Amino acid sequence: MDHPQTQTYGLPSGTYRRLRRLADSTGRFSMLAVDQRGSLRRMIGRKTESAPDTVAAESLRRVKRAVAEAIAPMASGVLTDPIYGYPASVDVFSPNLGVLLANEQTGYTSAPTDEDERHSRLLEDWSVEQTLEAGADAVKLLIYHHPEASAETIAHQKDIVRTVGTACSTSQIPFVLEVMTYTLDGSDKETAAFARRKPDLVVQTVDTYSDPEFSVDLLKVEFPASLKYTEEYEDTAFGRETTVYSRATVEDACSRLDDAASMPWVILSSGVDIEEFIEDLRLANAAGGSGFLCGRAVWKRVIDHYPDRQSMSHYMETEGRSNFRELMDVNSSALPWFEHPRFADRHP
Amino acid sequence: MDHPQTQTYGLPSGTYRRLRRLADSTGRFSMLAVDQRGSLRRMIGRKTESAPDTVAAESLRRVKRAVAEAIAPMASGVLTDPIYGYPASVDVFSPNLGVLLANEQTGYTSAPTDEDERHSRLLEDWSVEQTLEAGADAVKLLIYHHPEASAETIAHQKDIVRTVGTACSTSQIPFVLEVMTYTLDGSDKETAAFARRKPDLVVQTVDTYSDPEFSVDLLKVEFPASLKYTEEYEDTAFGRETTVYSRATVEDACSRLDDAASMPWVILSSGVDIEEFIEDLRLANAAGGSGFLCGRAVWKRVIDHYPDRQSMSHYMETEGRSNFRELMDVNSSALPWFEHPRFADRHP
Repeated sequence: MDHPQTQTYGLPSGTYRRLRRLADSTGRFSMLAVDQRGSLRRMIGRKTESAPDTVAAESLRRVKRAVAEAIAPMASGVLTDPIYGYPASVDVFSPNLGVLLANEQTGYTSAPTDEDERHSRLLEDWSVEQTLEAGADAVKLLIYHHPEASAETIAHQKDIVRTVGTACSTSQIPFVLEVMTYTLDGSDKETAAFARRKPDLVVQTVDTYSDPEFSVDLLKVEFPASLKYTEEYEDTAFGRETTVYSRATVEDACSRLDDAASMPWVILSSGVDIEEFIEDLRLANAAGGSGFLCGRAVWKRVIDHYPDRQSMSHYMETEGRSNFRELMDVNSSALPWFEHPRFADRHP
Repeated sequence: MDHPQTQTYGLPSGTYRRLRRLADSTGRFSMLAVDQRGSLRRMIGRKTESAPDTVAAESLRRVKRAVAEAIAPMASGVLTDPIYGYPASVDVFSPNLGVLLANEQTGYTSAPTDEDERHSRLLEDWSVEQTLEAGADAVKLLIYHHPEASAETIAHQKDIVRTVGTACSTSQIPFVLEVMTYTLDGSDKETAAFARRKPDLVVQTVDTYSDPEFSVDLLKVEFPASLKYTEEYEDTAFGRETTVYSRATVEDACSRLDDAASMPWVILSSGVDIEEFIEDLRLANAAGGSGFLCGRAVWKRVIDHYPDRQSMSHYMETEGRSNFRELMDVNSSALPWFEHPRFADRHP
């Protein structure tokens, strides 16, 4: 008896159906990220003047549910975590919503050889198989990467990505890899100095993980520059006095990212304000991006209303939704995933 | 770290999301069955005057695709098989369509002790886990059952059901069990004699597999009587001269079926004409049924147009869709799955 492997756009049937579920009906990704754990603990800690590690699980769940409940009906997908967010929100998710679950532990550990080098760790007592069984449509893995980190650190990170990628291929669940650059001297990323280096760092990182050995289906990537330090954005609400490049350089960085990416890619907001992220998205989509997987830029101010459930929901249903809608409007210019060069010549 | 098992309506998150995907947005099941293999080979064989076992796989795929392509956009779910139907149709299935895959081999083998007793067999080189990975939303298993079969045959059948049920629970994929009665003397089911026995046989079978040890999430069941032999239907196109009971008896059989079923249930058409199946569905839904999983009653006449691809598609897009729409109209009276007593007191 023959059991043909069903392939559409070169994808096995499970990956194909689930990838489609992450996107809207036109093939563009309008996704919400609410998988924050460490950063959400810190946000709640600041608001309640308490230490982040004393923030209760129930507090995380309350915020995550308020955010997810308001945005899920608009989004093509929602990224959450399997510990707090998913259990707190599964009943408000439509079965047609693409659900992504984070598979990494929050944060990172320091490399044994260098405390500023970052090692990622997978969640304990959780797996790609459990992600699939639990009814999610994609595995998300956040990986820190710096092209100049030690060979040992880079190998450690690549091993994790390869392991998860292989498991995702076997389970026919899309692998969404989030690549996050950082500084090797422990300094802040919000500086002009880092902004100058960011295009090359992001593009090199994308190039590294575009290797087929990692089996990545969709890349979640930082915007490859900082509009705060871009000449033409100096006078915006988010602009800084120091500028390190012009918009032409930023556009070039986006194009180089697109050239380096061997799969569809979406941008993340890493906590910038919504005004800046809207501009990021315009530029990214113009260069071949397929949309966004946006977190705090949409919902970070909900914490001002913490812990009042009604007030948080009201904020999310008004400001939160309005932010998300602005992103969706910009997203009509995104590249449908099946028009990415990886798939475009494999039309069924 | 705690990983709470997410439960909604008492269901783990994967089962919950996938069960919802099988139903329409109101919780009712309007599902197409096109998983026929043996019976489809026989239909094509009759049309082409060739032996069923000489019918090519490509012929099965062609019919299955024509049927699925026309009906899938209307249906809440489509049941097909992993060998011919799914590979031939996955690209025309919306990611929001509930997909069910048959896990049994077509037909049955005779019991070693009695050639009229039927043993089911699982597909070789296929599994519940592969069903999940391939992107399907439910496992369907057809099981033949006769309450008076030998203990050995009944144990054989129960073993298979238990094995599949356990695997489905582990994988958090809904288990749709199709229970099919038969005659122990090898005689035809289309007789007045069988019609008389059918209510008790079907109700007893449903009662047997309602035991929680089998982990069934949704039952696919024969209509528990035959309207052909029902007094009030004598003068219809499908009525026979001999009648064995009145509609009141049929209604009582439906109620007894509903009482016996410890989970939502839908009816199958087992090849009756559409006119009869519409009446079956009215009566079943009135007794607490949650809709239909209907095959040949919708599409069997497509074979008249075989092998012409265009002519088959035209038939399906007109007559086929019209048949399905009639069933959908009747289905507004079906019981949403979450209002079944199993779930109704577990509202989240």
